[in-house]
Amino acid sequence: MSRTRIGILGYGNLGKGVELALRQSDDMELAAVFTRRDPADVSIATPGVPVRREAELEQGAGDDIDVLILCGGSATDLPTQTPKWAARCNVVDSFDTHAAIPRHFAAVDAAAKEAGTVALISCGWDPGLFSLNRLYATCILPEGTDYTFWGKGVSQGHSDAIRRIEGVADARQYTIPAPEALDRARAGENPQLTTRQMHTRECWVVLEEGADADEVRRQIVEMPNYFEPYDTTVNFITQQELDRDHADLPHGGFVLRSGATASGKGHVIEYALKLESNPEFTASVLVAYARAVARMAAEGQSGCRTVFDVAPAYLSPQSGDYLRAHML
Amino acid sequence: MSRTRIGILGYGNLGKGVELALRQSDDMELAAVFTRRDPADVSIATPGVPVRREAELEQGAGDDIDVLILCGGSATDLPTQTPKWAARCNVVDSFDTHAAIPRHFAAVDAAAKEAGTVALISCGWDPGLFSLNRLYATCILPEGTDYTFWGKGVSQGHSDAIRRIEGVADARQYTIPAPEALDRARAGENPQLTTRQMHTRECWVVLEEGADADEVRRQIVEMPNYFEPYDTTVNFITQQELDRDHADLPHGGFVLRSGATASGKGHVIEYALKLESNPEFTASVLVAYARAVARMAAEGQSGCRTVFDVAPAYLSPQSGDYLRAHML
Repeated sequence: MSRTRIGILGYGNLGKGVELALRQSDDMELAAVFTRRDPADVSIATPGVPVRREAELEQGAGDDIDVLILCGGSATDLPTQTPKWAARCNVVDSFDTHAAIPRHFAAVDAAAKEAGTVALISCGWDPGLFSLNRLYATCILPEGTDYTFWGKGVSQGHSDAIRRIEGVADARQYTIPAPEALDRARAGENPQLTTRQMHTRECWVVLEEGADADEVRRQIVEMPNYFEPYDTTVNFITQQELDRDHADLPHGGFVLRSGATASGKGHVIEYALKLESNPEFTASVLVAYARAVARMAAEGQSGCRTVFDVAPAYLSPQSGDYLRAHML
Repeated sequence: MSRTRIGILGYGNLGKGVELALRQSDDMELAAVFTRRDPADVSIATPGVPVRREAELEQGAGDDIDVLILCGGSATDLPTQTPKWAARCNVVDSFDTHAAIPRHFAAVDAAAKEAGTVALISCGWDPGLFSLNRLYATCILPEGTDYTFWGKGVSQGHSDAIRRIEGVADARQYTIPAPEALDRARAGENPQLTTRQMHTRECWVVLEEGADADEVRRQIVEMPNYFEPYDTTVNFITQQELDRDHADLPHGGFVLRSGATASGKGHVIEYALKLESNPEFTASVLVAYARAVARMAAEGQSGCRTVFDVAPAYLSPQSGDYLRAHML
């Protein structure tokens, strides 16, 4: 059987993660990396695989690719890239602006239906695996309460927000679930939890020469939406310390549903992730769903899909017979 | 929209759980209960719903039912009931003899294809939700190790095995995951764990008058497969104490996968259930999948399915638009 040919668009942390994940999947191979940069400046880890300009996709450079995995950002890249390239290839993206998903879905669905391609959006772990667990748990326990806790892990959005403050040279922000809140949700108490009760925020900040530490701290802890609703601690360290102790991008979290059957008996469903590398794990989810997209496309399906629409067996390289005998 | 009409075959703990679960699902209703007993002896909780003999299904008593949920046992009921009734209606069962699933699947698939019905087998939490989590986690982390821990909960099979010993009037057996083993799996150590390291067994036994306690204890702890491979504790209590303290059927457990991406970075995926009533929770899973079966049948599908083959959105009464906007 020929291997599924995967293209990567965007060679940052996520794109590199996809390249790593493909090494663990014998039924897939990396066919090409596409970039907005000058390909001569992009050195990839896989020998013999071409690096091309994104614009070459318009001239058919992706036509021999089964699925293109879009590894750009949700703020500005994916809202234009996903519908654009869904009009030429089967695509998978990790669009994670929850509130904008319906609009993104509509744009991608129209493009994919017109082109006869399959596009899977908002894949990863949240949205993605966490969403799946919210859905399964809600369907099984219709009367109950959901809790999503994130962390401990690096929030890149919050780290960026700190870096935009005057006087800040660099920063890393960790989101930390509050142990008491997690324990109460886990115990099936169905607590009402405020934003402040569920998570704390821990900041590691490198100041520019001569910056006012107290003023930087004040601007962080009072920042609306990002930090004001939370208990936030701010630590100042040197760039060397930041590079040495905070270089990784760990993350994770917990999805819980606590509910009762009609007799009043209580049940708790918990899903938890503990990830040493957020981008590498996210990439591994994208690659599993790229396998599903290739299959759905081979069946003649078209249009936009999410993780909700994909039967789990489509993610596996194994046959139905194998899965029933070994995993059920 | 008309409600999905559900039939229950077998009115034991599981059948009663299905009846309870249907009360929490506005889009479904209980249409009839079928039993091998004399219907006059079966009093059900839902007013106005008929109780019929199982044999009436042969005369078309199930023809106005959308999905029949089979609530019998895996040892002797389901191997014959599921293929038999799949030839007349869409069905869902909870067949849980893992090793016999391929044979059961083949028999049910043949019957359902011939009849043009949809049958979903081996639904519940293990097999069922635990299987789903093993599959998702393995597809995402192809290089890793799986762990399944059960409990703390009542194992009915082990309780029955104790009751068959001479001198035993009644018994309840709890399966308990070993905390150290669970912690090591959770920590991503990828430990090799023996059966004895993963679970312990706790027995609460009521003796018949004049029975030899030491001999009963010896027969329990030395029983091959059931108890010999485990550290087992045996406690003797009165029938009153058993009825007072051990009447419920709690259960639960943990599915973990601990693996690494190709860079060597480690990731742990954990799924955990804590259930006050095993049969009521299992029944809630069956009802959610009965909704999916009704949809697949309405689409014109036929044949046997497992949880691996069902797109998660089929379990929900909500539309795709709603799910994308609220749960993704």
